[in-house]
Amino acid sequence: MVQITTLPRNETGIETAIGILRQAFGDRLQTGASIREQHGHTTTWIDNQPPDAVVFPHSTQEVSEIVKVCAAHKVPVIGFGTGTSLEGHVNAPVGGICVDFSRMDRILAVHADDLDCVVQPGVTREQLNTHLRDQGLFFPIDPGANASLGGMASTRASGTNAVRYGTMKDNVIALEAVMPDGEIIRTAQRAKKTSAGYDLTRLLVGAEGTLGLITEITLRLHGIPEAMSAARCSFSTVDAACRAVMATIQYGVPVARIELLDKVAVRAVNAYSRLDLPETPLLLLEFHGSEAGVAEQAETFGAIAEDTGGMGFEWTSSAEERNRLWKARHDFYWAALQMRPGATGFATDVCVPISRLAECVNAATARAEELGLLAPLVGHVGDGNFHISPIVDKSDPEEVARTEDFVAWLAELAISMDGTCTGEHGIGQGKRAYLEKELGPATRYMRAIKAALDPDNIMNPGKIL
Amino acid sequence: MVQITTLPRNETGIETAIGILRQAFGDRLQTGASIREQHGHTTTWIDNQPPDAVVFPHSTQEVSEIVKVCAAHKVPVIGFGTGTSLEGHVNAPVGGICVDFSRMDRILAVHADDLDCVVQPGVTREQLNTHLRDQGLFFPIDPGANASLGGMASTRASGTNAVRYGTMKDNVIALEAVMPDGEIIRTAQRAKKTSAGYDLTRLLVGAEGTLGLITEITLRLHGIPEAMSAARCSFSTVDAACRAVMATIQYGVPVARIELLDKVAVRAVNAYSRLDLPETPLLLLEFHGSEAGVAEQAETFGAIAEDTGGMGFEWTSSAEERNRLWKARHDFYWAALQMRPGATGFATDVCVPISRLAECVNAATARAEELGLLAPLVGHVGDGNFHISPIVDKSDPEEVARTEDFVAWLAELAISMDGTCTGEHGIGQGKRAYLEKELGPATRYMRAIKAALDPDNIMNPGKIL
Repeated sequence: MVQITTLPRNETGIETAIGILRQAFGDRLQTGASIREQHGHTTTWIDNQPPDAVVFPHSTQEVSEIVKVCAAHKVPVIGFGTGTSLEGHVNAPVGGICVDFSRMDRILAVHADDLDCVVQPGVTREQLNTHLRDQGLFFPIDPGANASLGGMASTRASGTNAVRYGTMKDNVIALEAVMPDGEIIRTAQRAKKTSAGYDLTRLLVGAEGTLGLITEITLRLHGIPEAMSAARCSFSTVDAACRAVMATIQYGVPVARIELLDKVAVRAVNAYSRLDLPETPLLLLEFHGSEAGVAEQAETFGAIAEDTGGMGFEWTSSAEERNRLWKARHDFYWAALQMRPGATGFATDVCVPISRLAECVNAATARAEELGLLAPLVGHVGDGNFHISPIVDKSDPEEVARTEDFVAWLAELAISMDGTCTGEHGIGQGKRAYLEKELGPATRYMRAIKAALDPDNIMNPGKIL
Repeated sequence: MVQITTLPRNETGIETAIGILRQAFGDRLQTGASIREQHGHTTTWIDNQPPDAVVFPHSTQEVSEIVKVCAAHKVPVIGFGTGTSLEGHVNAPVGGICVDFSRMDRILAVHADDLDCVVQPGVTREQLNTHLRDQGLFFPIDPGANASLGGMASTRASGTNAVRYGTMKDNVIALEAVMPDGEIIRTAQRAKKTSAGYDLTRLLVGAEGTLGLITEITLRLHGIPEAMSAARCSFSTVDAACRAVMATIQYGVPVARIELLDKVAVRAVNAYSRLDLPETPLLLLEFHGSEAGVAEQAETFGAIAEDTGGMGFEWTSSAEERNRLWKARHDFYWAALQMRPGATGFATDVCVPISRLAECVNAATARAEELGLLAPLVGHVGDGNFHISPIVDKSDPEEVARTEDFVAWLAELAISMDGTCTGEHGIGQGKRAYLEKELGPATRYMRAIKAALDPDNIMNPGKIL
């Protein structure tokens, strides 16, 4: 069995590499403490492990030079987009060089006739969608944060509308990448489909920078729908809400978003946004299509909701009314933090077959209550993916311990239900303990691939495996 | 650079392995000449290279035993589904053991609530859809032949409705596979999405049995649409037809199938099926959705067709009328062969960005005419994928040579247009010459992965790399 041994910290190598790179990059290489800390993990309470230097390349060629220097001196290379990942992906546990892609932020081409575009990894999804709007096109994947597209590809991100548009794996056509030896490859041409050889595109999507650095991304685009409608409906139980979700999907309603808030989450937004929603499970939906299509979809859902015990069903196709209906979801993040000022949210990310969703959600909320954790829940329930987020006082070690127990218990519960410990956040550092439990012997072959492509384990060491 | 060296034929190893397997499998191991030839390549004029023995396992455990014996004696292992592949995937260029999955043909589970099912690799797509019909579900991927699902996964197959439902890569949730050392793995759990580690599912889909043998497949299912409509429209030029295709897709019409027949193909079906279609490029479409939805989609296409110079637009949502409109497509295969009785069709499979499709189709048909080849063309044009199939007299070496020149020229033309030499058939033996031209340095890393997982190159040697 191939072992991925995390290098001990390689002082001399790191020093030498920094020296060489400083020559080449001048003040585009930074070693100040604050900038290094900004490039370590900052979004959860996983410890910040800053890199030794941060370099800001302008081109694929420069990324290749950086990787060649690091390969020659066996120095870790960690890619960095916007730093919004949630599992410690950008940490440098044994130091090394952080490659910050913020200056590789050009949209290189938009092929409207082919519904695709080619972007550098530092382009953010909002930047891309702003650029595309005039052409009536959009890129659908929406993880919430204004993440970089390189980072989204590297973590196989998805979000609220994956139920309709899929995840990054479904929306990346081709990649340019710098491999661990510094070589530049293209994983595919621009054709919409191909059967030409191994799917290196899908191998690099979700590899979290451990097999190479993504330097260019060809993305599928979609036409901005002619019309959108939104709907909202409360349910007395999670089971009833989940029955409505299953029926909607089985009925073939091409719902664009279908989000669940549990009663704790609804209580939070009622308080924060001065809403008066019934404090029971809430479903929020969005439909994309023609004027007639979105009306039909909303009404079909309305009928399903009625059959499954929905209460206070409302729908609209007017823009500001849509925002009113969805306010609970838009304000959720801030509302959750306001439940307990000064406390920290702890993200979880399990995903299970939809038939097990109600059972998993109920067990999770009951367990959190048992443990005395304040833990609002929001879910991309069309995919069976939800986030229950204990809001925790970091200064209370006993509460932190209870939270850690809860997070571990939930990951194992999802795995026991034929689900995954991570639907969209990735393994990073935070979920490494569960990958083996989830996939067992398959992880041996992941290690073999890692060892074959990156024998010195310089690409984002200490992540995934 | 890692070299994938095809083993010289390993006589002793093969003899020993057959001896051991005969003990274990009795008359489920066959060595008769005719059965061996049936398990070599039979669907095009690539030479038939039969295996030394064909074994019929009943279980994953038995497949694992077979692979362990072959690994111990460095003997090639070639998976076999229904033998409908078109690029010599099932040939045994240096002999070895063919693993015929026809007795692993059980549908293990249908999870209607989750819209997925678990099948053995020998299940064919028609068998699965017959089984699913009563539950209102279907599996959409339709490569034409009644292929096995294991084979379809291994070649990353797609077909006429990939434009709506994607390819095998988009419809496989998880795989069980026997790896080159005989170990059994699961690549993922049954959750609809995951970010847990490297995407071994997508690595094995399209690997053509060169990295392992697929022994179980978890597939995404879809609800049978409430309604279907079909449409037909002729165009004076390929350019006009392609403009209609692009506009339809850009407009966001969720077309389920959109097929092009060129004038040669239309002439063939007019003769064979006694139709009187104008002998100009023809588009055939199918729409899936609600009654109102499919009517709206067909009418939207009708308006687009009118704007782009379409002639004789017809649409219907009645079942037998749909068959009448689509008869030209359903009869195409036999009609093409009838153009020249006794001759053989030669499949091509290029796929280009849709914006280059008209240019590529026009160049291909013009070149075929120049070369005096009778070559009807049919295309899954919503994806930019088409098949122009010279109907050739195999007994005429000069005509065969012209055909081979044409096929090589077409693959390189598609690659020069940012397209691929194979949209859905795979590389196998027939397209190996083009993979390097298409993906260059990326093939080095494919070789590194192959060498890491299958160091003795026993899994389907002589394919892809």
